[in-house]
Amino acid sequence: MPRHPRKRDFPVAQVRRYLEPGPILLISSRWRGQANVMTLGWHTVLEFAPSLVGLMISAGNHSFRMIRESRECVINLPTTALTDTVVRIGNTTGAEIDKFATFGLTPEEATEVSAPLIRECHASFECRLHDAALVNRYNFFIFQVVKAHVAPTPKRPETLHYTGEGVFMVAGRTISRRAMFRPEILD
Amino acid sequence: MPRHPRKRDFPVAQVRRYLEPGPILLISSRWRGQANVMTLGWHTVLEFAPSLVGLMISAGNHSFRMIRESRECVINLPTTALTDTVVRIGNTTGAEIDKFATFGLTPEEATEVSAPLIRECHASFECRLHDAALVNRYNFFIFQVVKAHVAPTPKRPETLHYTGEGVFMVAGRTISRRAMFRPEILD
Repeated sequence: MPRHPRKRDFPVAQVRRYLEPGPILLISSRWRGQANVMTLGWHTVLEFAPSLVGLMISAGNHSFRMIRESRECVINLPTTALTDTVVRIGNTTGAEIDKFATFGLTPEEATEVSAPLIRECHASFECRLHDAALVNRYNFFIFQVVKAHVAPTPKRPETLHYTGEGVFMVAGRTISRRAMFRPEILD
Repeated sequence: MPRHPRKRDFPVAQVRRYLEPGPILLISSRWRGQANVMTLGWHTVLEFAPSLVGLMISAGNHSFRMIRESRECVINLPTTALTDTVVRIGNTTGAEIDKFATFGLTPEEATEVSAPLIRECHASFECRLHDAALVNRYNFFIFQVVKAHVAPTPKRPETLHYTGEGVFMVAGRTISRRAMFRPEILD
């Protein structure tokens, strides 16, 4: 895999291809001139169109206030090529260090939001806050993906799926059962 | 893998080990004497204790009303041993067939809820509705896991992660980076 995947525009209604399998994500944010990035494993797709995703962002994270106040973020998909970087991001805080500089990540300008894309990630989804109804009770943010950038190959890269206890499962091998599906539910 | 994993009690605060990696799930329900089961890929962990999970259950599913009215369900974790069964469950409706009988699944009595466990699954988590605030707007149910049953081995079984288009990614191989974690965030 290239160190810097070349991403292209991707349909926002199809981001489930990358999010529904449940990979660990890198959430980037920018607020008052500072950029930050955190790891996130607690997320779900909620709707195809508008393209909605739910993120549970623990209030203990430095990113929490940045995201709540800026009402924006970018969801970035790291592959196994970034395993150690993912762990380091998850074990440090943006209150103490500049994670982009410290971990050699390249911020790139997004199109629709001020939060940066992470060049080294396979995919980046620009998000605007859609519904904050459950933020106070559960730290649960509903975002709309307003712009998606995805490296065309590989179509399904090897991703990290966190189990707790410092252990990730790796998803990469695929099984197709397309022939068994009713055509109307294939999308 | 045995066809019928022998499950034991498991701490409800630790179900993230099986849910956070984002596998496809089988959700069983019972209402007015009928049992049903559906596939679900849109879910997230929300809290360790109480053990909360969020499930986006599309209103088009026969299970939607059963779960909304009974305010209960069981989250079951299938492994790759059940791949074809998972696909068949997702391509049929409980309005027309008895999925347990048709697909050779064995319903078992739960302890805390009336919805059945699925014997053939690796893990089963009994759930009671905790918060319905987003059900009308997003079909998003917040459940509390009140009892968990897990087969002790393998500790991290091979699971299915749906990408759309009839294709699953398989997670099985693990990577441990435990030595790189701060002790206080290992759980």
